[in-house]
Amino acid sequence: MLLIGYLGPSGTFSEQAALSYFNNLNEYELIPFPTIQDLLQAIDRGEILKGVVPIENSIEGAVNTTVDMLAFEVNLNIQAEIVIPVRHYLLGYKEFAFNEITQVLSHPQAIAQCRNYLHTHMPKAEMVFTSSTAEAVREVASKKSPRAAVGTLLAAKKYGLSVLDSDIQDTKQNETRFVVLGKEEGKKGDKCKTSLVFSTENKPGELYRILNIFSLWDVNMTKIISRPSKTKLGEYVFFIDLEGHVLEEDMKNALMMVQRKTSFYKLLGSYEIIE
Amino acid sequence: MLLIGYLGPSGTFSEQAALSYFNNLNEYELIPFPTIQDLLQAIDRGEILKGVVPIENSIEGAVNTTVDMLAFEVNLNIQAEIVIPVRHYLLGYKEFAFNEITQVLSHPQAIAQCRNYLHTHMPKAEMVFTSSTAEAVREVASKKSPRAAVGTLLAAKKYGLSVLDSDIQDTKQNETRFVVLGKEEGKKGDKCKTSLVFSTENKPGELYRILNIFSLWDVNMTKIISRPSKTKLGEYVFFIDLEGHVLEEDMKNALMMVQRKTSFYKLLGSYEIIE
Repeated sequence: MLLIGYLGPSGTFSEQAALSYFNNLNEYELIPFPTIQDLLQAIDRGEILKGVVPIENSIEGAVNTTVDMLAFEVNLNIQAEIVIPVRHYLLGYKEFAFNEITQVLSHPQAIAQCRNYLHTHMPKAEMVFTSSTAEAVREVASKKSPRAAVGTLLAAKKYGLSVLDSDIQDTKQNETRFVVLGKEEGKKGDKCKTSLVFSTENKPGELYRILNIFSLWDVNMTKIISRPSKTKLGEYVFFIDLEGHVLEEDMKNALMMVQRKTSFYKLLGSYEIIE
Repeated sequence: MLLIGYLGPSGTFSEQAALSYFNNLNEYELIPFPTIQDLLQAIDRGEILKGVVPIENSIEGAVNTTVDMLAFEVNLNIQAEIVIPVRHYLLGYKEFAFNEITQVLSHPQAIAQCRNYLHTHMPKAEMVFTSSTAEAVREVASKKSPRAAVGTLLAAKKYGLSVLDSDIQDTKQNETRFVVLGKEEGKKGDKCKTSLVFSTENKPGELYRILNIFSLWDVNMTKIISRPSKTKLGEYVFFIDLEGHVLEEDMKNALMMVQRKTSFYKLLGSYEIIE
């Protein structure tokens, strides 16, 4: 059995993402980890083979922890990106009417994402926060009472709660991006992305000089995030996603130039996108 | 009395930021709001004069909600930026030794930021999540018991808890950025920043063309964040911070060109930085 970690507890979107990618459960054993830090370190130390963590817009928190650790604390490759639509379900007991529900339990961000819905349908219910959506479902399932949880379908099945309503999130186009991480390099698929992190000196036009390189080699950038470097005040770190794989000639040439023109450079991986 | 809103409850970092800026309490009345949405809408409708909300790296959540609402939902100006170092305190009752503490209460992100500390000093304590750090302090203060909260000094004073330890966050260089929002334009101070949001068509080099404009006019960019647009798939929205004020000639010229070369453009404000 190959050991695959995910951000736990069981029943979260991370488990859902992991199950969609590692779907042969005769071959893989999925293991929940309490935090992103613990999970990434376990892969880095070789205790497990791979891991699945959120990298963008997840209700479990995260993008900063994941990208910072990839950039500065561990040596892992992004091997694939999995995009999962964020769908929240209202879960509970069918015996109680909506207006009887006294408490709604979930992770603060899940409750925030369903704020208008909850406000309209159960204005009197008290909001109770939990450490994850799965924890909320487990807690509501532990005792038959007029309480509801906001959580995933996976958690509803796992803990045996009824679906009271579907797609209760206020924004319908919300999605979460997960990455598969491991020691090996990612495979080249039909649709590929390359992620890197670099620093430049803090003077006008430095970032522009770097983006010029991608423009010269016709490499399209799909994402850019800047953050002040933690080590040096006034220095910035850029996280960039590019269309294409590092095995392609143009990408290879562009990255060689970028590496020469930056004060810090780390390739986070070239990998396939699974949607 | 001029009414100033902040992201509540009382005792949060937002109140601390608001107090540092609106320090004449004979002139201002500070009012807590339950969510960023409620607060920004109240300013937009003219019910209160100004508001203070986190915009980056806050433990109360937030950058996405704040910038998305500023970009697409309300017409407000950023009038000032306030940078507050994130300092977490362990608060409780002096009668209990560290190894007697059975529960530590706080917002999930505050607990995450003190994870190593809590793990080392009270490995057996259960972590209990609350909606804000202030709520954790209020709850622990409500009953003398071997529980502790992770919170601000402001909250400790407000609810009468003792400081058991200071600066317990794992990363010492953490800071949170808050913005003062209102209907009027920001004043020009010694150190100024200009924030804007724009969209470009999704073709290679479009962002590069825009950054070229800032390079031409010698305008330095201090921050850039890209996010997929919520309205059109494949279209990106960029949030950019620039050094300088819109009343400066070079900045004015640069922004005029940017406005002409983008499919969506909105100035979020030119304002002073308070550190």
